[in-house]
Amino acid sequence: MYIGIDLGGTNIAAGLVSDKGEIILKDSVPTNSERPTGEIVKDMAELALKLIKEAGYTPSDIDGVGIGCPGTIDFEKGEVVYSNNIRMEHYPLAVEFRKHLDLPVRVDNDANCAAMGEYIVNGDNAGSFLFITLGTGVGGGLVLNGKVYRGFNGAAAEPGHITLVSGGEPCTCGKCGCWESYASVTALIRDTKRAMDKAPESLMHSIAAEEGKVSGKTAFAAAKRGDKAAKAVVDQYIRYIADGIVSCENFIQPEITAIGGGISREGDYILDPVREYVGKTGFNKFMPKGRIVTAKLFNDAGIVGAAAIANEK
Amino acid sequence: MYIGIDLGGTNIAAGLVSDKGEIILKDSVPTNSERPTGEIVKDMAELALKLIKEAGYTPSDIDGVGIGCPGTIDFEKGEVVYSNNIRMEHYPLAVEFRKHLDLPVRVDNDANCAAMGEYIVNGDNAGSFLFITLGTGVGGGLVLNGKVYRGFNGAAAEPGHITLVSGGEPCTCGKCGCWESYASVTALIRDTKRAMDKAPESLMHSIAAEEGKVSGKTAFAAAKRGDKAAKAVVDQYIRYIADGIVSCENFIQPEITAIGGGISREGDYILDPVREYVGKTGFNKFMPKGRIVTAKLFNDAGIVGAAAIANEK
Repeated sequence: MYIGIDLGGTNIAAGLVSDKGEIILKDSVPTNSERPTGEIVKDMAELALKLIKEAGYTPSDIDGVGIGCPGTIDFEKGEVVYSNNIRMEHYPLAVEFRKHLDLPVRVDNDANCAAMGEYIVNGDNAGSFLFITLGTGVGGGLVLNGKVYRGFNGAAAEPGHITLVSGGEPCTCGKCGCWESYASVTALIRDTKRAMDKAPESLMHSIAAEEGKVSGKTAFAAAKRGDKAAKAVVDQYIRYIADGIVSCENFIQPEITAIGGGISREGDYILDPVREYVGKTGFNKFMPKGRIVTAKLFNDAGIVGAAAIANEK
Repeated sequence: MYIGIDLGGTNIAAGLVSDKGEIILKDSVPTNSERPTGEIVKDMAELALKLIKEAGYTPSDIDGVGIGCPGTIDFEKGEVVYSNNIRMEHYPLAVEFRKHLDLPVRVDNDANCAAMGEYIVNGDNAGSFLFITLGTGVGGGLVLNGKVYRGFNGAAAEPGHITLVSGGEPCTCGKCGCWESYASVTALIRDTKRAMDKAPESLMHSIAAEEGKVSGKTAFAAAKRGDKAAKAVVDQYIRYIADGIVSCENFIQPEITAIGGGISREGDYILDPVREYVGKTGFNKFMPKGRIVTAKLFNDAGIVGAAAIANEK
């Protein structure tokens, strides 16, 4: 039995997770990320202990704790090398956590944990599994032979920062033309606004007015009601997603690619054309194709995955 | 001791290779790829036998044969699923070869073999090693933990067909905007010609006239002599190379990336600006950077790698 903790900028979510990846009990507390890191770590440990006790166990029943944290993580050392969201730099998170709750602790990047969580429930024991999350940014993780692939320096699997348009839109990472700058919800909103500026007659205006803002849903909602300008935005956005997935497939040929993040709730409306494009343009015409599926866990992926990483052999 | 065979469109190159990857003896014969495949396979086996005998051995001294072949290979079956260059479709190459020389035979994609060959001499036992070849196309191979990474369907590691400019230049693969359509020598020649059309005063014209054609060297030669239009072509070409390498690094973080193919003979003239761009724009600013090196083996990589794949555990 493991504890999985998903340390986010807004909430600390934690769960007591069985060896098979089932959440037995879960809870969350606010991160309040502006306060001293030590207080955040103390709350993480207290939340874990609360779950253990509420479920009728003691710490000695727990095999380990996994923590998923945004930013650059030194997995071997259990150290947060740099995190912008939680304001940590070379912070020995595993060591600090154990001062409050002395159990084996592993720390990994939050997207790696989410990938591992999705793999547990959605991975069918695939030898190669790619998780892509389309949200404010584009993140992801790669699970090879049931283990997170971290690259030689622990920083691998940043599919959002493969180039999609060399020299294109500026990305938050400092490079131009990253996949994230085209396939994130942030990019979709930018492109929706640009299209609205050019199409004053578009339904997108009234939909955005009803919502009170332009969101990632605006163009989709208008396109489904037959709006041409919106359809063009959606088609181009789907093409950007698909073109990045082809890149990943032509490089790694994952058996399963799971698409998560808010936008994936559009389901087959996005995935059918993505599958069609990837099937048609993928480099290999003569071998079995990888499956492209929607993610299943959403918010629980981080908890389940962090616990699985604590359990990694 | 192994036999490595590099089956190319022009020549069949073969070598007797030690367990450590040293070529003991090598030779080649023309492929004459238009003739019946059975004759080509017979010549491959006869070439192998000739090498074995000339080195004073018998087939029983040989632990196995590795064959690198262009196209789509079913590694498990030893079958060429499809090869355009050698005109094979669902051809049981391993079985057919053994009719002439009955030794354990493995067949793999030629770029995978070249990657493995480079890894043997240039890989420093790196846990992750990416080989990129910039030639008529852009090919490559990925070696993880000392083994070729083939993906779930055997078709992985086609870095030339990751997208570099979504919706950009048409690629021979049918998709638009592949890295190959920008970083191959074919693309460089196209861009050199386009620049020459716009710059009648450029040195590129006289250099091409001397050479009798526009080649991958034209722009480099003119740029080194201070020609501005040529310098712009070279700078953009190097940027395309670098942008693709950043994509590979941000996804896989290989410990070593080795660049081969004719153009890599430009050495640090290309690689220094590539390293600078990758170092500056790679996603991870806080962890060790992978090394980018030039390939060492050139034409022998296929032979050494095919032998190593025969020796793969």
